[in-house]
Amino acid sequence: MRRVTSATSATLALGAFCAAGLAAAQSSAVQGPVTGSSVTLFGVADAVLGYGSGSISHRSSLYSSGNSASRFGVRGIEDLGGGLGAGFWLEAGVTIDTGTGVAGNTNNQPNGATSADALSFNRRSTVSLIDFWGELRLGRDFAAHYRNRSDVDPFDNNGVGTIQPQVGSIAGPTSTRVSNMVGYYLPPGLGGFFGEVQYFMGDNVSHLPTSDDGTGYSGRIGWGSGPFSIAVAAGRTDYLRTPTNGNITVANVGATYDLKLVEVSAGYYRDKVDSFVPVKATGYVLGMIVPVGGNQIKFAWSRYGTDAVGDPAASKLSLGYVYSFSKRTVAYATYSHVNNSGGSAVGLNGAVTEPNRSANGYDLGLRHSF
Amino acid sequence: MRRVTSATSATLALGAFCAAGLAAAQSSAVQGPVTGSSVTLFGVADAVLGYGSGSISHRSSLYSSGNSASRFGVRGIEDLGGGLGAGFWLEAGVTIDTGTGVAGNTNNQPNGATSADALSFNRRSTVSLIDFWGELRLGRDFAAHYRNRSDVDPFDNNGVGTIQPQVGSIAGPTSTRVSNMVGYYLPPGLGGFFGEVQYFMGDNVSHLPTSDDGTGYSGRIGWGSGPFSIAVAAGRTDYLRTPTNGNITVANVGATYDLKLVEVSAGYYRDKVDSFVPVKATGYVLGMIVPVGGNQIKFAWSRYGTDAVGDPAASKLSLGYVYSFSKRTVAYATYSHVNNSGGSAVGLNGAVTEPNRSANGYDLGLRHSF
Amino acid sequence: MRRVTSATSATLALGAFCAAGLAAAQSSAVQGPVTGSSVTLFGVADAVLGYGSGSISHRSSLYSSGNSASRFGVRGIEDLGGGLGAGFWLEAGVTIDTGTGVAGNTNNQPNGATSADALSFNRRSTVSLIDFWGELRLGRDFAAHYRNRSDVDPFDNNGVGTIQPQVGSIAGPTSTRVSNMVGYYLPPGLGGFFGEVQYFMGDNVSHLPTSDDGTGYSGRIGWGSGPFSIAVAAGRTDYLRTPTNGNITVANVGATYDLKLVEVSAGYYRDKVDSFVPVKATGYVLGMIVPVGGNQIKFAWSRYGTDAVGDPAASKLSLGYVYSFSKRTVAYATYSHVNNSGGSAVGLNGAVTEPNRSANGYDLGLRHSF
Repeated sequence: MRRVTSATSATLALGAFCAAGLAAAQSSAVQGPVTGSSVTLFGVADAVLGYGSGSISHRSSLYSSGNSASRFGVRGIEDLGGGLGAGFWLEAGVTIDTGTGVAGNTNNQPNGATSADALSFNRRSTVSLIDFWGELRLGRDFAAHYRNRSDVDPFDNNGVGTIQPQVGSIAGPTSTRVSNMVGYYLPPGLGGFFGEVQYFMGDNVSHLPTSDDGTGYSGRIGWGSGPFSIAVAAGRTDYLRTPTNGNITVANVGATYDLKLVEVSAGYYRDKVDSFVPVKATGYVLGMIVPVGGNQIKFAWSRYGTDAVGDPAASKLSLGYVYSFSKRTVAYATYSHVNNSGGSAVGLNGAVTEPNRSANGYDLGLRHSF
Repeated sequence: MRRVTSATSATLALGAFCAAGLAAAQSSAVQGPVTGSSVTLFGVADAVLGYGSGSISHRSSLYSSGNSASRFGVRGIEDLGGGLGAGFWLEAGVTIDTGTGVAGNTNNQPNGATSADALSFNRRSTVSLIDFWGELRLGRDFAAHYRNRSDVDPFDNNGVGTIQPQVGSIAGPTSTRVSNMVGYYLPPGLGGFFGEVQYFMGDNVSHLPTSDDGTGYSGRIGWGSGPFSIAVAAGRTDYLRTPTNGNITVANVGATYDLKLVEVSAGYYRDKVDSFVPVKATGYVLGMIVPVGGNQIKFAWSRYGTDAVGDPAASKLSLGYVYSFSKRTVAYATYSHVNNSGGSAVGLNGAVTEPNRSANGYDLGLRHSF
Repeated sequence: MRRVTSATSATLALGAFCAAGLAAAQSSAVQGPVTGSSVTLFGVADAVLGYGSGSISHRSSLYSSGNSASRFGVRGIEDLGGGLGAGFWLEAGVTIDTGTGVAGNTNNQPNGATSADALSFNRRSTVSLIDFWGELRLGRDFAAHYRNRSDVDPFDNNGVGTIQPQVGSIAGPTSTRVSNMVGYYLPPGLGGFFGEVQYFMGDNVSHLPTSDDGTGYSGRIGWGSGPFSIAVAAGRTDYLRTPTNGNITVANVGATYDLKLVEVSAGYYRDKVDSFVPVKATGYVLGMIVPVGGNQIKFAWSRYGTDAVGDPAASKLSLGYVYSFSKRTVAYATYSHVNNSGGSAVGLNGAVTEPNRSANGYDLGLRHSF
């Protein structure tokens, strides 16, 4: 209720925008005691020339996000005093080669998929309350069980080099992100421990066979000290059991070790769809980043396969180089090779390959962050 | 026409963005003499845990905008000297629980409804010329006849507590907002008088039975002095007469009285669809906000019913509490109860209830403005 | 790969936004040595009352972009030292009368058309590397062969006055913009020479009859000195030959001459669709802008016709006046008259006219840039 009054003053009058540099931007990404308010506009523009060759066809394209996901966002934090803070984060995926958006999902179910034609805050859309006890976060964000897939991937799940446990994931609509989430994130400063738990809803009415579809939970707990860090995660999303769908469970572990001359990483993944005949998938990742001055040589081996008929599996070897013009701007090149077995037919960069045949992919791109 | 010249300089070269605080932000919402230029980025992130129970089903969900509409916008004002100014306002609805947008309408007709998948400036999209004589505003904005529905609602038409004359409105595509509008808004400083008149178009070609569909006008005039304020509004939108549609007329009155210990409000509403058998609706609102320190206790009773077969009507009682962390950040809880009669079957928070059965709804949310 | 670590710090931490005025904004539109970094928010809000009358129907509407395309964008440039720079440009078309977006195209083919319901960076979405040697630009942008259509049009291809070679263009999805583009733009300071070349892709897989659809190239070279400037352009996009489609080629020349009392312009256009029975189109433009104080009188004559059965052609005469409140804000009025012949039935502002009958159109609008 507002005083009945002139129409124009009835619009929300709160508005505060101030410039923020790197430090301020980072602070909004950290839970725990809040000191200082800011609003930050940020984004990434990453375009990449991709080429893929398979046994059936090859394909050239200009595409988006070969090194980092193209995006446009606004985020902010308000210092409420005494360490308490409130924050928001609105982040839209951008397909830089066409200017369109990136598809999202409104209810963690296949019928909630949204169009990629236009911009939505599909990457993250949250409001938070933050204090010394951690962060309460509501909205849409990465699933906790996704984090170990990006953290151990030298290619950050972007471009042709993306690890197979991400590319091939059988974990459905909640594999990477969840909508309608209530999450709690541990604060920093717990002797190296970090983690989060999430409960997310399919937002269905009760008393239907599909009432629980898209509802689930996910959690992750990790510990890091000095150069070493490790985390385990698990999640489950409910779906009505059918010949092709059912409850989906995800469990994984990831670790990184910074040896200075080289940073190594490893991950292990178990995904399961509890359909009439359940399908289980297993994945592995070994990664390596060699810093060369300000630049990087990247190497990744990964494998992901299921126990479906024939035990289809794909192994990928990726090699990349990132040349840094600055922290914000890089050029990069990536080569990937996939070996298919058991009926798998994974192609690269849109090229099509026959079952059990290999495929090659190449990326050459430019990424700028702001 | 530009000088034939290098491609890159052919792009519009005007660009001015400057940080603006609360004061500057508010100035852009006021008609009348303009002093000072600014551009303001603003928004709201509001997520709410909702639960509804009806006689058929119940439903839990995380949803958006329980206290204030989640949004993202940019607005600005240019001082043209001598009190004259120009302004723009672009405001997109955001569904914070999923990151998607909110549906709009392009032509004030049912076939002009737009997808909610992605962001559009569905809430407001205007350009203005402003002077001592008032404001000329072109584009999409609230309908004048809508204002009395939000101004007297302690819950501002957000969340489970929203008054029934808003929830149940039979006033069609122009009930809340109008596209293709030419509006004139009175300036401040007219001895307490305020108001606006709008003409809006369906943008159809002539010589069709539906040529006038979506075309109409709306106006509102009010007066306020000290703690008291009252306004009357009326609007009409034309549609081809069919068994279920026809010209829609809306008339209402709203008043607020700030008694310091409590702010009270009241509203009365008449809506009519002139179909083959016309349908008339009548609504009432009584509201109350009790300030408790910086916090608020909210109470609202409302009723909305039509003269369709059986005289279906729904009465709602809502009770809410808003705890303010700051002006920008609040937590809130709301309880609502609906009584249905005459065949009405209004449920709350997505739960389904049978005709003439009651329903309960609960909200627990966090809102942050920027 | 990131160190396995707390989820919240895994989000990209780069974020820099600073206010930028006109000078900074313009610098981001200029290739060549880069000096200084900036990020600029910019846009246009342009609403126009349009009326059109044809022999069959007339039509009134409020529409968007009568003087300049309504838009919302963010662009920036990073100084990498030694004249080297990186830049990005994200620009979304806005339909100001409804708040929706503007349709784009993802693959330069008819099936890549996107919805206009919501915002996308359909106008421009690019990342660039810039140095003394010019600019490498990747993404979606104006086609090189489009520039001579806007540069010689006193109405900048906006509103009812838009020249016929733009309105009637038979050049398909790549007539104005191209997605999936790799472009090279000449730097300034080459003795008056300017230009660009582009290669763009349809992003199809190989070994299909339509593999090359939407793939093509475009180039433009011009020279300007003092008040005179001229440019030629040509482009080609491949499509499978069918009864109605085939390779599309575009060639044109445009020139402007600033005589101080009046700025004159001229353009000549040849477009061809190589379908089973090829269709060729020819267009002409003569333009004139007379500055009157800070205001402008605009005049344009244009003609566009094809060699399809009957040789349909439309000639347009447009007269306009632009009143400037400031550099950022103008009011404008335009009158246009179209003569149709050979079976052409071009109407104005949505009115419908019979073949070979004339049509009239009127615009009255307000434009504000930020």
